[in-house]
Amino acid sequence: MSTKILAYISFIMVNSVIINTSFAEQPALLTEQQLKQVKQVRQAALKSNLGYEILESLTTEVGPRMAGTPQDTMAVNWAIAKFKALGFDKVWKEPVTFPTWVRGEESAEVISPFPQPLHITALGGTVGTGKNGVMAELVHFKTLDDLKKADAKDVKGKIVFVSNKMERTKNGAGYGKAVAARGSGAVEGAKKGAIAVLIRSIGTDSHRMPHTGLMRYADDVIKIPAAALSNPDADQLVRMLERKIKLKIKLVLGASAGPEFTSYNVIGEMTGSEKPDEVVILGGHLDSWDLGTGAVDDGAGVAITMAAAKLISEQKIKHRRSIRVILWANEEQGLIGARAYANAHKNELDQHIIGAESDFGAGRIYSFSSLVTEQDLPFIDQMESMFKPLGISRGNNKAGPGPDLIPLYALGMPVFRLAQDGTDYFDLHHTADDTLDKVDPKAIAQNVAAYSVYALMTAQYEGGLKRPQKEEK
Amino acid sequence: MSTKILAYISFIMVNSVIINTSFAEQPALLTEQQLKQVKQVRQAALKSNLGYEILESLTTEVGPRMAGTPQDTMAVNWAIAKFKALGFDKVWKEPVTFPTWVRGEESAEVISPFPQPLHITALGGTVGTGKNGVMAELVHFKTLDDLKKADAKDVKGKIVFVSNKMERTKNGAGYGKAVAARGSGAVEGAKKGAIAVLIRSIGTDSHRMPHTGLMRYADDVIKIPAAALSNPDADQLVRMLERKIKLKIKLVLGASAGPEFTSYNVIGEMTGSEKPDEVVILGGHLDSWDLGTGAVDDGAGVAITMAAAKLISEQKIKHRRSIRVILWANEEQGLIGARAYANAHKNELDQHIIGAESDFGAGRIYSFSSLVTEQDLPFIDQMESMFKPLGISRGNNKAGPGPDLIPLYALGMPVFRLAQDGTDYFDLHHTADDTLDKVDPKAIAQNVAAYSVYALMTAQYEGGLKRPQKEEK
Repeated sequence: MSTKILAYISFIMVNSVIINTSFAEQPALLTEQQLKQVKQVRQAALKSNLGYEILESLTTEVGPRMAGTPQDTMAVNWAIAKFKALGFDKVWKEPVTFPTWVRGEESAEVISPFPQPLHITALGGTVGTGKNGVMAELVHFKTLDDLKKADAKDVKGKIVFVSNKMERTKNGAGYGKAVAARGSGAVEGAKKGAIAVLIRSIGTDSHRMPHTGLMRYADDVIKIPAAALSNPDADQLVRMLERKIKLKIKLVLGASAGPEFTSYNVIGEMTGSEKPDEVVILGGHLDSWDLGTGAVDDGAGVAITMAAAKLISEQKIKHRRSIRVILWANEEQGLIGARAYANAHKNELDQHIIGAESDFGAGRIYSFSSLVTEQDLPFIDQMESMFKPLGISRGNNKAGPGPDLIPLYALGMPVFRLAQDGTDYFDLHHTADDTLDKVDPKAIAQNVAAYSVYALMTAQYEGGLKRPQKEEK
Repeated sequence: MSTKILAYISFIMVNSVIINTSFAEQPALLTEQQLKQVKQVRQAALKSNLGYEILESLTTEVGPRMAGTPQDTMAVNWAIAKFKALGFDKVWKEPVTFPTWVRGEESAEVISPFPQPLHITALGGTVGTGKNGVMAELVHFKTLDDLKKADAKDVKGKIVFVSNKMERTKNGAGYGKAVAARGSGAVEGAKKGAIAVLIRSIGTDSHRMPHTGLMRYADDVIKIPAAALSNPDADQLVRMLERKIKLKIKLVLGASAGPEFTSYNVIGEMTGSEKPDEVVILGGHLDSWDLGTGAVDDGAGVAITMAAAKLISEQKIKHRRSIRVILWANEEQGLIGARAYANAHKNELDQHIIGAESDFGAGRIYSFSSLVTEQDLPFIDQMESMFKPLGISRGNNKAGPGPDLIPLYALGMPVFRLAQDGTDYFDLHHTADDTLDKVDPKAIAQNVAAYSVYALMTAQYEGGLKRPQKEEK
């Protein structure tokens, strides 16, 4: 909404009887008493270690929990037990079925002229190489675009190496720019006749920790194996190639498709006092990749949102709407749980008032964004005043959905966004190094406080929080 | 030497005829012209990238070079070629023969109650577990001393876990305190009937990078397998054990003893103009562990000392004594090359004027220590003034030998010590993460400058640099 329109509305409100009509349409804001309760929960959350304790429990007792593995089932059982132990009013699970992917053995090495091992990991969804692996000359492209532009005769029969480097940013923008090499590298390589693809990890660290993550095939393109090199290994190959020699590489991936598997979205709800059927949503995804213990991706989101709802309940605060924590199944392999949830609940969409997902690590929240019509902006002003003491400033009114909210967002559900500092997130993301020791308990507590403010305020607000008809660009 | 004695000597020198005798015994210091040359080399070294380039070459073209592997031989060939390419006057190799150790496959996992993989690596010299591995309950000790004090009935048939944590220090003192768990853990465990030993890595990082390193057996104690857990994995086991559950662990190590192997100490010398048979020594060890590319341990030492000698030569400075760069074979598995060198040269020890080794990573040098009698202290004063502009302050007169100088030191050779900042060294030491990207080229240049100052000054000095009869404590 533009400043001019706002000025015009103010003019009308002050100068005409329309003022009364407008005012009648304005939903009531939170009362002083309700704001006092928000402050009380916020304070309790900052003092509480509950979020960190939940995260410690999940990462220790379950650890890695890739979709379709026995640990996926363990995580579901853990989540049900944890919701119950925390005293959620309702706890249930909803089935999510998908084909599985099995990692298997994985290794790579330089065969000549400088024989040495390489640290690699298979990209999620890749086919395997066969037991004996593939061995071929490496052909190097600095970017996916360079590969797309390449002459097929320079690629045919070779292993493609795409060395594009992800940029470190606070908001994760570097990821979006770099990740296409992971998603489409195998398809683009195969189109030119490559026999396999190696990419520089989509990550910002400099450790021998390759970053896995989902890749995709196209129906009409032959499937070739794809893996990520750790960043130091990618740099090493670049140095070797600067010597203008032919690099012969061997790659062995035991990856394969596994049987169909049923996991579950696990849901815990604190029932609302006046409109129990209306829900405000928060959550994270319960699955992780298999390399680390999924502390920052997305154990943190699970723990933060479970703790936030629990802390509201613990303060014995009556909230009008229900507060629903959804722990989505299998986010990593394509938002499978999120799609299943949206499909299962598409007829109750009017009762899904708003949603916010925590899935960007364990860093502090520095900003929030809304996505509301003008009538709800005074409520957002109230939220701003409640977030401010947490060091969270107001962003724009163009909030986008967290990954698992995309299917609900596509159906029209309003969303809210709490932006975390992701400067270090991609040092750990999808690596074996995603473990609890990287998490600051104080930052988790700040996140819990922010999500408790979000959940309690949206549960109390009498407005509908509709999305603007035409969203700002 | 105390201040009081210094004052007394000054008194005598000013007040008696002894002054002449004393003065006659005092070796001539470096001339202004010679000091000017030292400054010239120091300046050239600070501006040069040669040290880093040598390190890039070794770590890229050879990479990991564990003693007894094909890459050990490649490293020897690389070193000979590099010395020759740098224009050293004499280049030769001396044989070093030893039994080899082969790493083989390695893996570990928690079997129950929280099944998940563990990041481990075999300790150098360990026996294997057999193909099927060993599986047993874990018994935890916080320190090696706790294990020593344990009741054998609590250890028998179990896998011992020693979780002692290395402390981060600038001078590496934390290593000395912690490393006994690695060296003696298997012997102490076996004495109580353990079937294998897992230690927390002797390292200061928090990455899933286990630190390998040498362990030892005792002749009269059964040999059990020994491995190191990455620090996050060790922390994970501690968290699991806090739950008072029985932890069942599986460990598979394919380690075995290999055949005897002959490697080489590789030596390059810049011949002295007046006393070519007298040598001042600098160097590092050419071998590395197999996990990383040995950038900081000890590619840096190799590169720094090769570059230092080369830069002196490049400035066309005549130096009285020869400057000898020794790249020792197989330091990691017990100073094998260093012992061989000392044995081969024990009859020329009088011609080995002094030695300094660079084997503490790639951090800046912050301090130097000497080990001389009082007559050479004025020369050390001169050195101090040449080191000062490099940010290197004077330490004590109790210098100890770098690891590869221990055998020569034991035979009486004087040593000199340039102390590097090792604050971060044990984040990388003996891990896969020991790669070139961790090295700051400017810090390497500062090291090269310091070693060139050391080598040129000791090569020019007319004194003998004898060690004190009774060394200071």
